[in-house]
Amino acid sequence: MTEPIYEPISGNVEKVKTMLTGISDEAAVSFPETGQMLRQILGGGKLLRLRLVLHAGNFYNYNEQKILAMATGVELLHISTLVHDDAIDKAKTRRGRPTINSIWGTDKAIVLGDFMFARAAEFVADTESIRAVKLVAGGLGSISMGELRQGFSLYRLDQDFNQYLRRIIDKTASLFSISTESGAILSDAPEESVQILKNYGLNLGIAFQIMDDVLDFIGTEEELGKPVGSDLLQGILTLPSLKILEYYPGDNPVLRLFEGQGDSKQNVAEAIDLINNTSILEECLKVAQDYSRAACKDLDLLPSSPSTESLYALADLMIKRRN
Amino acid sequence: MTEPIYEPISGNVEKVKTMLTGISDEAAVSFPETGQMLRQILGGGKLLRLRLVLHAGNFYNYNEQKILAMATGVELLHISTLVHDDAIDKAKTRRGRPTINSIWGTDKAIVLGDFMFARAAEFVADTESIRAVKLVAGGLGSISMGELRQGFSLYRLDQDFNQYLRRIIDKTASLFSISTESGAILSDAPEESVQILKNYGLNLGIAFQIMDDVLDFIGTEEELGKPVGSDLLQGILTLPSLKILEYYPGDNPVLRLFEGQGDSKQNVAEAIDLINNTSILEECLKVAQDYSRAACKDLDLLPSSPSTESLYALADLMIKRRN
Repeated sequence: MTEPIYEPISGNVEKVKTMLTGISDEAAVSFPETGQMLRQILGGGKLLRLRLVLHAGNFYNYNEQKILAMATGVELLHISTLVHDDAIDKAKTRRGRPTINSIWGTDKAIVLGDFMFARAAEFVADTESIRAVKLVAGGLGSISMGELRQGFSLYRLDQDFNQYLRRIIDKTASLFSISTESGAILSDAPEESVQILKNYGLNLGIAFQIMDDVLDFIGTEEELGKPVGSDLLQGILTLPSLKILEYYPGDNPVLRLFEGQGDSKQNVAEAIDLINNTSILEECLKVAQDYSRAACKDLDLLPSSPSTESLYALADLMIKRRN
Repeated sequence: MTEPIYEPISGNVEKVKTMLTGISDEAAVSFPETGQMLRQILGGGKLLRLRLVLHAGNFYNYNEQKILAMATGVELLHISTLVHDDAIDKAKTRRGRPTINSIWGTDKAIVLGDFMFARAAEFVADTESIRAVKLVAGGLGSISMGELRQGFSLYRLDQDFNQYLRRIIDKTASLFSISTESGAILSDAPEESVQILKNYGLNLGIAFQIMDDVLDFIGTEEELGKPVGSDLLQGILTLPSLKILEYYPGDNPVLRLFEGQGDSKQNVAEAIDLINNTSILEECLKVAQDYSRAACKDLDLLPSSPSTESLYALADLMIKRRN
């Protein structure tokens, strides 16, 4: 993610990072422990969403102040949902560092996430665009609805591809699409271009999440930073496991796992084996590729911009990444 | 709270209640369990904050559509913070009904609260006022900062009145002040009047929280819906217990409780006894009265409105309430 081609307007990623650091410093003034908690989580990660805002804002009137505020708000919103997700999943590490909940407990993680939502909303409001505020509010709604959907569908076999797609759009792709749509809006892009960039974000986000779900089965524990097959072990059906259910309807390790038959870890290991050694893997990668391609469909209709190449490169990276 | 004098523009409280019910119904369409969870918590309670928005909006150009959206947003934000608070406190009941966390678990309570934040933000954005959005974003920031402050100061004796005041302003009074300030803004009140109404909300909120903290020691378990003295038992210092520390510095039940000496419940019982049978109770009530009076200080400078009487009545009710 650090290759120059993904770098939007020179120095602007650094400026957003500085704004994120500023949040910790500011919070530390009123309460040192809060500053410490924020420093634990801000500024790391792929910073994909903030890059998307910066690139999408780079086709018409690049309004640095508004674009930086939006990029900071979107990235912050993303991190706050991670803080709550980790609390829910009782995750021990995130991006190779101990999670907030593992150091300070679930209670503090809940409140810190809330505090970050608030700061995210403030940054978004700094764009002075009600449309951007509505987008982000709707985005948090989608993300939490997606999380609820996932929570209520754990260990349930009555799920199909469309439900999976709905879930990953809500959980992941919505914020990608908000990132690009808001960048377009804040640079006064005409409505047609707003839709092209929104479409890019949405499809990129779907491709990203499908790859995430595939990597959960084909990655190594080092690459993933968590055990292989952990989604399935937690009762979450994703594209690869849906395909197992489809191709081996009578008896298969996913069915056995969800119905509590046999050893859980053995079932997960069998599922990993099936995915890696049948056509399932290739088929899933193909689906991700299709979405990555759909993302770029109309990019050439946009005005010429150095960000065009970066958006293509990101779409390509999406389906080649290993972590 | 149901006496007519507290009732703003006829029928408008009912309209907001209908909007709140609409959120459950709408969520139920995409996911039935979510609708069930929302129905469990929406529409009950004192609805104080929404009334404040309606009244504060009733001095200049009453803009029903914007005021109703704001009132719904503020009430929703309040309820979402309660959902997270209950999850943090592992509370079993709220307003006489089982809490979300007690029925569906902490995880679902975290996500449902997030979903409600999002819906609240959407309602506030429906006012089309960036200033209102900024206010509310700042409000959620204050509330969560207040909660963090409280979390980090549990069982700590190095606290004074000013820190207590800071904490209850953040935790409670900020949202009261946002309710009245936003009502004023959305009805195009001149800046001077915005400040008078903001000041009303802020001081009313402080009086409200001090009374809450006093009632925690002088109420009955039935009135409170929780054991008497439960704040203290959880390690939270409030005005009455601060006064015990001040008046009995050498040895007192609060000191013993926080230092782990003797039986916790016995210490709390002694504290309750001290507060009820010394001048502490009266002094605390006096402080609440002072803030209630400060709230009303400049109300007469506002244009004549049926809401003036209601705001006076609410300020009076604040310090007379028993639950």
